[in-house]
Amino acid sequence: MANDKIQLTGVEVAKHNTKDDCWVIVHGRAYDVTEFLPEHPGGQKIILKYAGKDATEEFEPIHPPDTLEKYLDKSKHLGPVDMTTVLKEKTEQSPEELERQERIKEMPLLSQCYNLMDFEAVAKRVMRKTAWGYYSSAADDEITMRENHAAFHRIWFRPQVLVDVTEVDLRTTMLGTKVDIPFYVTATALGKLGHVEGEVVLTRASQKHNVIQMIPTLASCAFDEIVDAAGPGQVQWLQLYVNKDRSITRKIVEHAEKRGCKGLFITVDAPQLGRREKDMRSKFTDPGSNVQAGQETETNQGAARAISTFIDPGLSWKDIPWFKSITKMPILLKGIQRVEDVIKAIEVGVDGVVLSNHGGRQLDFARSGIEILAETMPVLRKLGLENKIEIYIDGGIRRATDIIKALCLGAKGVGIGRPFLYAMSAYGLDGVDRAMQLLKDEMEMNMRLIGCQNVDQLNPSLVDVRSLYNHGNTPSDSLALSVYDPLVNPPPRPKSKL
Amino acid sequence: MANDKIQLTGVEVAKHNTKDDCWVIVHGRAYDVTEFLPEHPGGQKIILKYAGKDATEEFEPIHPPDTLEKYLDKSKHLGPVDMTTVLKEKTEQSPEELERQERIKEMPLLSQCYNLMDFEAVAKRVMRKTAWGYYSSAADDEITMRENHAAFHRIWFRPQVLVDVTEVDLRTTMLGTKVDIPFYVTATALGKLGHVEGEVVLTRASQKHNVIQMIPTLASCAFDEIVDAAGPGQVQWLQLYVNKDRSITRKIVEHAEKRGCKGLFITVDAPQLGRREKDMRSKFTDPGSNVQAGQETETNQGAARAISTFIDPGLSWKDIPWFKSITKMPILLKGIQRVEDVIKAIEVGVDGVVLSNHGGRQLDFARSGIEILAETMPVLRKLGLENKIEIYIDGGIRRATDIIKALCLGAKGVGIGRPFLYAMSAYGLDGVDRAMQLLKDEMEMNMRLIGCQNVDQLNPSLVDVRSLYNHGNTPSDSLALSVYDPLVNPPPRPKSKL
Amino acid sequence: MANDKIQLTGVEVAKHNTKDDCWVIVHGRAYDVTEFLPEHPGGQKIILKYAGKDATEEFEPIHPPDTLEKYLDKSKHLGPVDMTTVLKEKTEQSPEELERQERIKEMPLLSQCYNLMDFEAVAKRVMRKTAWGYYSSAADDEITMRENHAAFHRIWFRPQVLVDVTEVDLRTTMLGTKVDIPFYVTATALGKLGHVEGEVVLTRASQKHNVIQMIPTLASCAFDEIVDAAGPGQVQWLQLYVNKDRSITRKIVEHAEKRGCKGLFITVDAPQLGRREKDMRSKFTDPGSNVQAGQETETNQGAARAISTFIDPGLSWKDIPWFKSITKMPILLKGIQRVEDVIKAIEVGVDGVVLSNHGGRQLDFARSGIEILAETMPVLRKLGLENKIEIYIDGGIRRATDIIKALCLGAKGVGIGRPFLYAMSAYGLDGVDRAMQLLKDEMEMNMRLIGCQNVDQLNPSLVDVRSLYNHGNTPSDSLALSVYDPLVNPPPRPKSKL
Amino acid sequence: MANDKIQLTGVEVAKHNTKDDCWVIVHGRAYDVTEFLPEHPGGQKIILKYAGKDATEEFEPIHPPDTLEKYLDKSKHLGPVDMTTVLKEKTEQSPEELERQERIKEMPLLSQCYNLMDFEAVAKRVMRKTAWGYYSSAADDEITMRENHAAFHRIWFRPQVLVDVTEVDLRTTMLGTKVDIPFYVTATALGKLGHVEGEVVLTRASQKHNVIQMIPTLASCAFDEIVDAAGPGQVQWLQLYVNKDRSITRKIVEHAEKRGCKGLFITVDAPQLGRREKDMRSKFTDPGSNVQAGQETETNQGAARAISTFIDPGLSWKDIPWFKSITKMPILLKGIQRVEDVIKAIEVGVDGVVLSNHGGRQLDFARSGIEILAETMPVLRKLGLENKIEIYIDGGIRRATDIIKALCLGAKGVGIGRPFLYAMSAYGLDGVDRAMQLLKDEMEMNMRLIGCQNVDQLNPSLVDVRSLYNHGNTPSDSLALSVYDPLVNPPPRPKSKL
Repeated sequence: MANDKIQLTGVEVAKHNTKDDCWVIVHGRAYDVTEFLPEHPGGQKIILKYAGKDATEEFEPIHPPDTLEKYLDKSKHLGPVDMTTVLKEKTEQSPEELERQERIKEMPLLSQCYNLMDFEAVAKRVMRKTAWGYYSSAADDEITMRENHAAFHRIWFRPQVLVDVTEVDLRTTMLGTKVDIPFYVTATALGKLGHVEGEVVLTRASQKHNVIQMIPTLASCAFDEIVDAAGPGQVQWLQLYVNKDRSITRKIVEHAEKRGCKGLFITVDAPQLGRREKDMRSKFTDPGSNVQAGQETETNQGAARAISTFIDPGLSWKDIPWFKSITKMPILLKGIQRVEDVIKAIEVGVDGVVLSNHGGRQLDFARSGIEILAETMPVLRKLGLENKIEIYIDGGIRRATDIIKALCLGAKGVGIGRPFLYAMSAYGLDGVDRAMQLLKDEMEMNMRLIGCQNVDQLNPSLVDVRSLYNHGNTPSDSLALSVYDPLVNPPPRPKSKL
Repeated sequence: MANDKIQLTGVEVAKHNTKDDCWVIVHGRAYDVTEFLPEHPGGQKIILKYAGKDATEEFEPIHPPDTLEKYLDKSKHLGPVDMTTVLKEKTEQSPEELERQERIKEMPLLSQCYNLMDFEAVAKRVMRKTAWGYYSSAADDEITMRENHAAFHRIWFRPQVLVDVTEVDLRTTMLGTKVDIPFYVTATALGKLGHVEGEVVLTRASQKHNVIQMIPTLASCAFDEIVDAAGPGQVQWLQLYVNKDRSITRKIVEHAEKRGCKGLFITVDAPQLGRREKDMRSKFTDPGSNVQAGQETETNQGAARAISTFIDPGLSWKDIPWFKSITKMPILLKGIQRVEDVIKAIEVGVDGVVLSNHGGRQLDFARSGIEILAETMPVLRKLGLENKIEIYIDGGIRRATDIIKALCLGAKGVGIGRPFLYAMSAYGLDGVDRAMQLLKDEMEMNMRLIGCQNVDQLNPSLVDVRSLYNHGNTPSDSLALSVYDPLVNPPPRPKSKL
Repeated sequence: MANDKIQLTGVEVAKHNTKDDCWVIVHGRAYDVTEFLPEHPGGQKIILKYAGKDATEEFEPIHPPDTLEKYLDKSKHLGPVDMTTVLKEKTEQSPEELERQERIKEMPLLSQCYNLMDFEAVAKRVMRKTAWGYYSSAADDEITMRENHAAFHRIWFRPQVLVDVTEVDLRTTMLGTKVDIPFYVTATALGKLGHVEGEVVLTRASQKHNVIQMIPTLASCAFDEIVDAAGPGQVQWLQLYVNKDRSITRKIVEHAEKRGCKGLFITVDAPQLGRREKDMRSKFTDPGSNVQAGQETETNQGAARAISTFIDPGLSWKDIPWFKSITKMPILLKGIQRVEDVIKAIEVGVDGVVLSNHGGRQLDFARSGIEILAETMPVLRKLGLENKIEIYIDGGIRRATDIIKALCLGAKGVGIGRPFLYAMSAYGLDGVDRAMQLLKDEMEMNMRLIGCQNVDQLNPSLVDVRSLYNHGNTPSDSLALSVYDPLVNPPPRPKSKL
Repeated sequence: MANDKIQLTGVEVAKHNTKDDCWVIVHGRAYDVTEFLPEHPGGQKIILKYAGKDATEEFEPIHPPDTLEKYLDKSKHLGPVDMTTVLKEKTEQSPEELERQERIKEMPLLSQCYNLMDFEAVAKRVMRKTAWGYYSSAADDEITMRENHAAFHRIWFRPQVLVDVTEVDLRTTMLGTKVDIPFYVTATALGKLGHVEGEVVLTRASQKHNVIQMIPTLASCAFDEIVDAAGPGQVQWLQLYVNKDRSITRKIVEHAEKRGCKGLFITVDAPQLGRREKDMRSKFTDPGSNVQAGQETETNQGAARAISTFIDPGLSWKDIPWFKSITKMPILLKGIQRVEDVIKAIEVGVDGVVLSNHGGRQLDFARSGIEILAETMPVLRKLGLENKIEIYIDGGIRRATDIIKALCLGAKGVGIGRPFLYAMSAYGLDGVDRAMQLLKDEMEMNMRLIGCQNVDQLNPSLVDVRSLYNHGNTPSDSLALSVYDPLVNPPPRPKSKL
């Protein structure tokens, strides 16, 4: 058992710098992780890089603060370190990093951002490469990720005019909660990669704009931190990756309900977290001099997979009754991708579904949520099931017109994830606040222009979806395109060798 | 009350340069705008920039000359200023502006312009950035604006041959007026941004080519100036933004009728003027040293919204009888966007509609006028309503083939806006004259080539619209495209650190 | 009357260098064109440029050699000039022309050209700008010209395998003439712009490969020269622009029949020759110092219109019986563009049609010949008319696969124009020879690969045309694209002025 | 008869360096090829380049080792050469080659390759130009080659969720053989162009991953070498180009059966090997000083045609019974391209077909295997024939999602060719090993994400093929695109000459 009184020195810690004797410092305290090394979900390599050193900066964004408490036996907690005695590594900054520092100095004013894409543009310039890699990457050729956005562009409006739109009301209810505008902040992992405070920034912005935040299982902040950050009456939902160990899952669900969460969103599209090559490529590092050309021992998996080994690929429809037995929260299935499964969801008696492909991060060539919605609602209406559950979509929403299209087609609301992460990464709370305000401004204007006074008036006759199913203009396959060697016209006459 | 005899000096005016005591000079006369500041539709900031100074250059293009007469109490008119005593600010020209001056020197000869796009290309090079920003911008991602043009490209001809086309007659009638070619000059705001004389340039060109000009509510010239510029027998129409204060609207309409306007076009697609981000971005200026990074107090709205706060978002079908009661002019609804509303228009007894999305400046993803037309006419024919009203379209017309396509599909005529603005901005009256002549030459030739002797012979069998509804090739979303970070192939092997 | 004995001197001719007294030298002889100036179809300006000078180089390619004989009264023929006394103008070569000379030196070997596009690539590099402009230009935005080629790309093969294709026979008959491969050299104007010998080069290549040449009305060579260049038994057709003066037309037709032409192809898609803006732009020249900015008196029309003023726009179906009365040659209508007109052609009793849009040079957005063919044949088959006439197409053919597609869909053969002009312009007779040989090689191979032993076996089941009518991927509108100013993400933060 | 004891000297060999007396050295032995010159399938020119010299480097990759034994009479085998006496030509390396050497030094680590495209990208950088030209080239405009890949992008998934996918089984059987994953290594020619060991590298990788290798007729390695390289129990198939001399074919088939091959794949899409222009262009060499501009005597055919003159274009359905009579191996037809031929194949009683267009190397605009499959299966099901034969496809497969799509649509498995060649060319056996492993990893993950536990569960309801037949987005025609000269806006005003 560590003694908080007696401080360790950096010199002492530095001695334990091998695979067989490995100490690391996190937040000013030393830990003996020698025995834990083989169990680390992210692999040993990343820990050994910090053997005998301060690992705080690397540890921080991808572990909730209570991680060491929970997963490392108390006997391995070695107590406080006198940080003045710890050598600060002069991390020579790469040219890339120096360029990033320059870009940060030239960061546009927040008031120069006029739409959600602008935040992404700024975030791309100012975020660390690996953080950008984690947030922006998606599965395989990232075709589904781009399709999510592109699909909205195949839906056109049929606006009605000469409607009195002096007053426009954007409010609606989601699972009984009144919200000011029909979007919620969907769950995204590892918020501290983008902002030092992590997900609580989104909590505060959600409160200001009276929208619901869905708390991610893989948050950088601890669940309780995020709940504590909520204001009085503020509603939050829980996103759940189901653990192979159901008792852990039960504990999480019961705790969330106790803390006041108003909805349980079970992720069903991620029995295994996707391979995201940009994420992997952005984390590839110099393997050092002992690596032979063409060989390397350990494959870098990217952040996504490192943190997700606990997820149960065995989760099935049979588990739903159990969930209903352990909570009174409304249960929703997040990641439904075909109308047949929407009908099954109604049959098993859940309260809603999110039509989603996980932001394009799981199965490439999965269809967009908006296309699944357009396929689903006519079938439900035919079966008289359209009011049995609440249907949400997420993926690719960047404009209020996207939200309006979803509502016209029958969605109760939409989830927005990456755009708020980018706004947060670039400008913190002010950024998320402005992003939400821009959406509100856009939506109020566009409700007027489409001729509707409130969201209940949005209906399928206001949109033309005839081109939606036409995937002729599929986003390009960058890798194949860049590899293709186009034919060329004849080169100049060969020079005679004479 | 100002005394025209006693001249103020620049020094005197310059003292009143604060929010609480704000004078400005316009056209050589001083005005006390202190109390007016909070009411200024364009915001206080833009006025305060000129507090104590000469604001004429900024004021001129975006306010009709009678604005101060109308909106500022006479007691605030301070009388003439001795302009020799007013300090001329040495406005240091930006590198951008210097480049523009260079481009003006290299402006192509008018005879080098062979089509309407050419004028746009020249205008883009020689117009001030903010003026170009106002004219060329459109809503959100400007997809509808580009779709307006692109939609014509999905309509193909089925020409007939071996018709005697020695004589080709382009003439038609619009609301009973004989015109030489089936287009009219549609209403566009702020003509003085492009040319010092403003809309009267278009009046003169319209007279020369015997086409109708629609006078915009938001003209830079005063309404009467534009009417006065018309030649004997020249026909003009009035475009109307309906004021919240109907008595003002009534006055405008009655005055227009009295001055001889032959048609009243009520704009119904603009209960609120659209957000146009290029316009906003082009007006963004240095907020000065007292602005903190990431914060700014006032959002710049662009020219469009600044000038449009009076428009009534409450305008509805119920108002139409009132309009019929106050004027004998034919009444047309400008901005109808679905066949259901065309039928309503027939039911309320107006004389015509313009199928239009406001040049793509209002609701992005509104469909093009030509597509709405192709949807509308078969329905009307089925209902036997095709001759009840006159149907016009505008948006995206750049070639005579576009006009012919619209007429084949049932339009009485088409409105053309931006192309004439660009021709005027680049070359003044000569430019507009040539632009109209080019259209006539194209149309005469293309009527021959499609095998029709006059516009009445144009009919649906001459076009193939099967691809019109296919939006698979939607104009790209520049912002999203530029933000997307394409996947890359493996980079070079990392250098060993040894 | 000129005296051939007495030679004029250059000094003497040079005196007559004004509008009111204008002599020019052509091929060593002087002509007084003062009175002819206003009648010159190409405008006065171009002649005045050579007033008092030798105009041979400019005159040569665009006038058949007998032009002056035919159109200038003998009294204006002033007789031979002592060319040693004529000042040679040192034409300072433009940088553009010098670069072209460099490109000619680096011209690829003929054996480096592997397909028809390769000749076009070489021609583009080595032809004079104006000649390239005339050959390569098309109507308006050149969308139909590109669509002609692109349409073939929307037709896919359904090849059959395991057919004995040891022997493959490419031969067929056209209007009764046996040819070695199912294409003919279609009529194209002004051959001497590309090659000093002009159309006779194509005559010789056609003989070698036993294909038919269609002789153009607007040839650079005289009609008789082209006929004289033919070998024994070689078959030629006549393309006819119908003159307003039918007696001239009659003379041409009767003469052609007498000289052995085996088919009369009446052009019906050109009541007026199209505006081709690249052609116009490439001929635009320095208007000199007396031209005011923004003004010019005479519009340059490009070569096409200058040479075509005689064409009768009054030609109609009523004229066909007359043609049948003056010739025994089979009569075909070149430029039919819809199935309705094919049926009319059968009704009036002509022998065939060419489904064509004139190489995209007339009406932009006319459909491709191959698409009209695919529309036409099923209708004819339904009516039992499919064998009543021979149907040809032209436009966009670059590969043997294109020929095969046309034959599968029911064409008797295809016309190829520009590709042979380009091959001729780059490499003369050898070029055309190789171009034809490449097509033969391609076709023999592709007949094997599609599993057919001869052209009669080609049939509609071998192609998939489901995408043919889908114009979603229309060739882009270069002018509009280059003018569009894409939205941008936020620029860097403005620098403080402090 | 050569005497192995007496060694020839380089000086002696060098004397025989003319067309009429031509010796060459291969692998340290001299051969008199004077009489063989006219019979050489690749043409005389390439041999004469090495007259009197060592031709090993050129000879090696494109001839199996037993070639000289088989095809050159023993009397022409001149025996060993003292290689120390042979002048090594200082082959001055081209700048291109030097750049390639640089790129090889910077070759990425194998672990930096995350997908099959990555190997192609590396191979493109490090392969010799001619080898890359041979592997990567395809027919005509290479549109079918690219369509093969692109077609998969028009198929989208309809994944099912909440299925227990803890265990995922990728195994299947092909022609009775159990394999670990449903792909086989399809036959590709000239393996030594990419790797010094040739096809045996693929044999070894196939063994490791328990997949089947199809042995190519045109392998660089001898057939027996490839069979010898197989491990115990490893299954191989034979790809067969049918020789005009059926006795040779019989010998090959009987030998293969004797050596244990378990399937005979008769190529039916190549009665003549295709023209591949990139291949031809990459082999074009300086024709020397005696070549006149614009003329050359011998057309370079590229590697493909040089090696394939023996193939029988007379092969037809009538030959199938004979094949059945000479072997007990299952017989499959490789290169079927329409459903009608699939039905014929069932009728003649073969065991399977490969729906394939030969990697786009034969007939351009042939449809992709996946599209033919989607056309075929519904027809077979309707006829009750879907289980009569095994159906494979190849072409364009780069991702496990592609494999899954093919299996959903009814394929038993897929063939993969070029990707393994590229992996081999870049990284040898390790490369192919990793490429296969990556596919396995992708497939295991994607099976989970689509909600299937084994390949038998894959079915048509899991894919959306509505866009598959839409060829609106055809890969571009690089040659035509690069030749097209886009219209431009007006250039600057011409400078006055004053």
